[in-house]
Amino acid sequence: MFSKNKGHTDYDIMTLQHILDDIYTEIQPHIGKGKVADYIPALKRIDPTKFGLSVCTINGERASVGDASERFSIQSISKVFTLTMAMKIAQEALWKRVGREPSGNRFNSLVQLESENGIPRNPLINAGAHIITDILTSAYEHPKEAIVQFIRHVADTTTIDFDLEVAKSERETGNRNLAMGYFMKSFGNIHNQVRVVLDVYFHQCAIAMSCEELAQAFLYLAHDGILPSTGERVIAKEDTDRINALMLTCGMYDSVGDFAYRVGLPSKSGVGGGIVSIVPGEMVICVWSPGLSENGNSLAGTKALELFVQKTGKGIF
Amino acid sequence: MFSKNKGHTDYDIMTLQHILDDIYTEIQPHIGKGKVADYIPALKRIDPTKFGLSVCTINGERASVGDASERFSIQSISKVFTLTMAMKIAQEALWKRVGREPSGNRFNSLVQLESENGIPRNPLINAGAHIITDILTSAYEHPKEAIVQFIRHVADTTTIDFDLEVAKSERETGNRNLAMGYFMKSFGNIHNQVRVVLDVYFHQCAIAMSCEELAQAFLYLAHDGILPSTGERVIAKEDTDRINALMLTCGMYDSVGDFAYRVGLPSKSGVGGGIVSIVPGEMVICVWSPGLSENGNSLAGTKALELFVQKTGKGIF
Amino acid sequence: MFSKNKGHTDYDIMTLQHILDDIYTEIQPHIGKGKVADYIPALKRIDPTKFGLSVCTINGERASVGDASERFSIQSISKVFTLTMAMKIAQEALWKRVGREPSGNRFNSLVQLESENGIPRNPLINAGAHIITDILTSAYEHPKEAIVQFIRHVADTTTIDFDLEVAKSERETGNRNLAMGYFMKSFGNIHNQVRVVLDVYFHQCAIAMSCEELAQAFLYLAHDGILPSTGERVIAKEDTDRINALMLTCGMYDSVGDFAYRVGLPSKSGVGGGIVSIVPGEMVICVWSPGLSENGNSLAGTKALELFVQKTGKGIF
Amino acid sequence: MFSKNKGHTDYDIMTLQHILDDIYTEIQPHIGKGKVADYIPALKRIDPTKFGLSVCTINGERASVGDASERFSIQSISKVFTLTMAMKIAQEALWKRVGREPSGNRFNSLVQLESENGIPRNPLINAGAHIITDILTSAYEHPKEAIVQFIRHVADTTTIDFDLEVAKSERETGNRNLAMGYFMKSFGNIHNQVRVVLDVYFHQCAIAMSCEELAQAFLYLAHDGILPSTGERVIAKEDTDRINALMLTCGMYDSVGDFAYRVGLPSKSGVGGGIVSIVPGEMVICVWSPGLSENGNSLAGTKALELFVQKTGKGIF
Repeated sequence: MFSKNKGHTDYDIMTLQHILDDIYTEIQPHIGKGKVADYIPALKRIDPTKFGLSVCTINGERASVGDASERFSIQSISKVFTLTMAMKIAQEALWKRVGREPSGNRFNSLVQLESENGIPRNPLINAGAHIITDILTSAYEHPKEAIVQFIRHVADTTTIDFDLEVAKSERETGNRNLAMGYFMKSFGNIHNQVRVVLDVYFHQCAIAMSCEELAQAFLYLAHDGILPSTGERVIAKEDTDRINALMLTCGMYDSVGDFAYRVGLPSKSGVGGGIVSIVPGEMVICVWSPGLSENGNSLAGTKALELFVQKTGKGIF
Repeated sequence: MFSKNKGHTDYDIMTLQHILDDIYTEIQPHIGKGKVADYIPALKRIDPTKFGLSVCTINGERASVGDASERFSIQSISKVFTLTMAMKIAQEALWKRVGREPSGNRFNSLVQLESENGIPRNPLINAGAHIITDILTSAYEHPKEAIVQFIRHVADTTTIDFDLEVAKSERETGNRNLAMGYFMKSFGNIHNQVRVVLDVYFHQCAIAMSCEELAQAFLYLAHDGILPSTGERVIAKEDTDRINALMLTCGMYDSVGDFAYRVGLPSKSGVGGGIVSIVPGEMVICVWSPGLSENGNSLAGTKALELFVQKTGKGIF
Repeated sequence: MFSKNKGHTDYDIMTLQHILDDIYTEIQPHIGKGKVADYIPALKRIDPTKFGLSVCTINGERASVGDASERFSIQSISKVFTLTMAMKIAQEALWKRVGREPSGNRFNSLVQLESENGIPRNPLINAGAHIITDILTSAYEHPKEAIVQFIRHVADTTTIDFDLEVAKSERETGNRNLAMGYFMKSFGNIHNQVRVVLDVYFHQCAIAMSCEELAQAFLYLAHDGILPSTGERVIAKEDTDRINALMLTCGMYDSVGDFAYRVGLPSKSGVGGGIVSIVPGEMVICVWSPGLSENGNSLAGTKALELFVQKTGKGIF
Repeated sequence: MFSKNKGHTDYDIMTLQHILDDIYTEIQPHIGKGKVADYIPALKRIDPTKFGLSVCTINGERASVGDASERFSIQSISKVFTLTMAMKIAQEALWKRVGREPSGNRFNSLVQLESENGIPRNPLINAGAHIITDILTSAYEHPKEAIVQFIRHVADTTTIDFDLEVAKSERETGNRNLAMGYFMKSFGNIHNQVRVVLDVYFHQCAIAMSCEELAQAFLYLAHDGILPSTGERVIAKEDTDRINALMLTCGMYDSVGDFAYRVGLPSKSGVGGGIVSIVPGEMVICVWSPGLSENGNSLAGTKALELFVQKTGKGIF
């Protein structure tokens, strides 16, 4: 087992690669289980047997197995990028428009919005992410471009882009998101036109990235807000801790408690089958497997992360 | 700032005492703010200006300020002790009777019980704690004595006991707890007589302990399940991580998200004004101040923990 | 078709008997359908093929078919008798403790009690009936006896009594009712001891009456509050209209709208399989058939009332 | 007091006029109380002291007081006209897409839609009315024109029309209605484009009519589905009873129970301050006064109807 020295990682990358290899072997019976998201054709036709796992340390070392270099639709994982951007823009004022409590409801529920006057529970459920996107829509002349530029920058990869077919499908099937948007607008909590905000939102969800790219892109959350490759500060140290706290308490739809119990790392999942997990002070792990649990989280992905924490002792608890 | 070496604490106790002294100075304007719990006379008449803070490391070093040696009613903090006991007894079967998700509702809400067939969201809200107490009531001939013996043992203090006046008042004003108990019994999820289970529950809430005693008693949660003083294993390493995860996601009533955002330590609060926080691998902090926020957590206590994490960098994120 | 002359009924009793005979023939395929209430043994063992139908006019004429003279457990139909008694005692003050709106929820739901501070939606759902029984418990030294005496009086039948086996079973399985009682007590809306109030409640539900006795007993609701046999005023004219209005909007559990749509008469059902319907100014109809719909109303009973209104044109709309 | 002879009204119109005159005197202290709907400018600037009351019998006799000939925005009263149209088109299939139970929630709540899979509780709340309008949008090439033509026909008045300023304002402030529409579309329960359906809906709400015109237009609901002036059948007798039943159980927002208790007539209100009430077999009463109660019903209008029923005994219970 590794010891836990924040800012001073002591494991060696060969050991890490061996661990991933072991996980890849043990995870085989879980691959293909669960249900691939089927609400849009572009997600439905993904090969359910895909599985990728990639680790990137703050020292820039990497280990990967499986389809870790194949891009997939990041979906709700994008909410962490846009939250980072919005926290820099709106600061504390952000928390007047969105809460920071777990929802206790499905990610796309409208019930709490009604009893809580259009203030979503947190920025990592759909309604909360709309507020975040609304803030970016107000702040940038070209918000879609601003988002993809930010992600290219933190991932240090210029080829990351929208999957326009996915974005189009999202828009065509996005009636519940439109319902949420208009509902919050009826409370005055969406400032721009609902259709404009949702166009940005549907695009951010449709960004395609690989496990390797995501593990690299989120290193700032494992490194006190700083990009390890360049030393550039992306976000304040305190805000890094806060985003990690939000991921732990709100990042896994309606199974944050179960996920914290089993894995114990700040994480964010997407219905494309990806999950990103942060080991503060050390590394980022990204897993991808399209089969989802009832709660919308990758089944084999969750299992792989559970194995990773068991084998490395890297849980935060 | 301290570095974070799990199992190898490197700070010195004099520094820790200085930090507590600084916190005690800074916290003064916050003491007495908020509302003392007033639903029973014995809690209502507590001096609202009380404030105690105590730290105990896994090496057995201690630092304290204020009223850290004065006993108060531990109330919901007792739920962590009983959960520990029940996890040893019921193992995985426990999770068929209680969930492990944040509730998204007030700690004493009955709404979710109805839509989720009498299965409480987690063992740290009232309804979930009733299930835990029901398990102990089935397991022990004298469950009240078993609970207080367990606490005396982990706290290494034989004088810890029930405040019988508080227990009596709890019972007399406990109509909502009775409602919850009978409601879960109507779903078959309470196995013993409701009045018997609640008598145990009201007693466990009425145990009186000081900050120093609580910090000592919970060291096993900072030390992989082992009592540092004797090396005795209280609970498995994995279950320790899980209890800490449950405390982080479910331990602070309806402000777990906000508390994780501001403090970022696995914690449990009680309406008596106490809060216990775990720094895994290092120490336990216990604070007491009777003035409560709207969500039922100690106001000055939360602030003190926020200062502690700021000054020491000991947050888990 | 009969014409509708309030206070001046113009049909002849032979015609009415022919109509009931026709209904009895047509209803045969419906008898035995649905699910007999099975939460207590005494109800569960009722022969599901029982069917009785009785009409009593304000002129004292009667017509009956089937098992109309056999007694069954009146269950929630008792709520109309106790409401009548409580309206005389508490007058307008009653409506501070219970609402008069349809609940939009199952008859034994606790959800609305929580969001509406322990004030039940109306006096014909369980929670509301507890408030009514609490009022009678405060008003009478022997509330159980007072209730049965009232019913004997309006039914002009001294042999009506509690089925003590049913009452005992109700108490033993009444955990959800206890939950409701303690929940409302926690809001201060039950004044007596919960167990005392519920003992009365379980007894009133366990009164056994026949269709003929119920049709006779409720004539005051068809006759402006006056017992037609003696001219004695039971309740004010306005209160009679109000009870009828409450029955129409709140009397059929969660299918008041559907029942008003299909039958269109102020009615109250019980899980024993009975339904009482009022034709203001003319008559009372009582039907009994133990097989229940999902909503807890007698299936064949509802169908029989639908046929009655089709054949006589006696709907109020 | 009048006697109640369905199909054979025996009062004289002079008496009726005297009663309205008396009501007009007694109602004066209530006029101007409550809150005029202020969500759109065109409603907000209505003179709050307006009051009109008109009665029209199935024999074509009329009596009126106050501003009974002044047109106002009929708003939700339009839902009864469109329901009549849709019942003729969709027959029983209609009830697969919308329920017929009181909602127990505010007229524009989204909560029940979520738990009941996009099936609104009844056709007289907003969400249900959207379904009805969707049916008309599918059935007619020019649904707006079809609706206004239907109303002109039953009211026998060719000048009835949309208030286009109101329709435009409704659209501009209609975010919650859009939210409901997209929410139901996400469940597949809106077949046309949401914006198209809501354009029709906002126009039907914006129709302007006077009390006299509304009392005349709804005579078919007091006359077994037949226009008394021409003998033309608008809708089947059974459907007439059913619409009246729906009005009684669902027509007054979240105070149907209270309204049935106080007034006891099938009625529909609108936020423009109008209320239409049916006395089956006899007459229609329409009242208008813009000041609304918390539940969105005209305050003075409800009081006037209560007085009318007290003075005439025309309640249905």
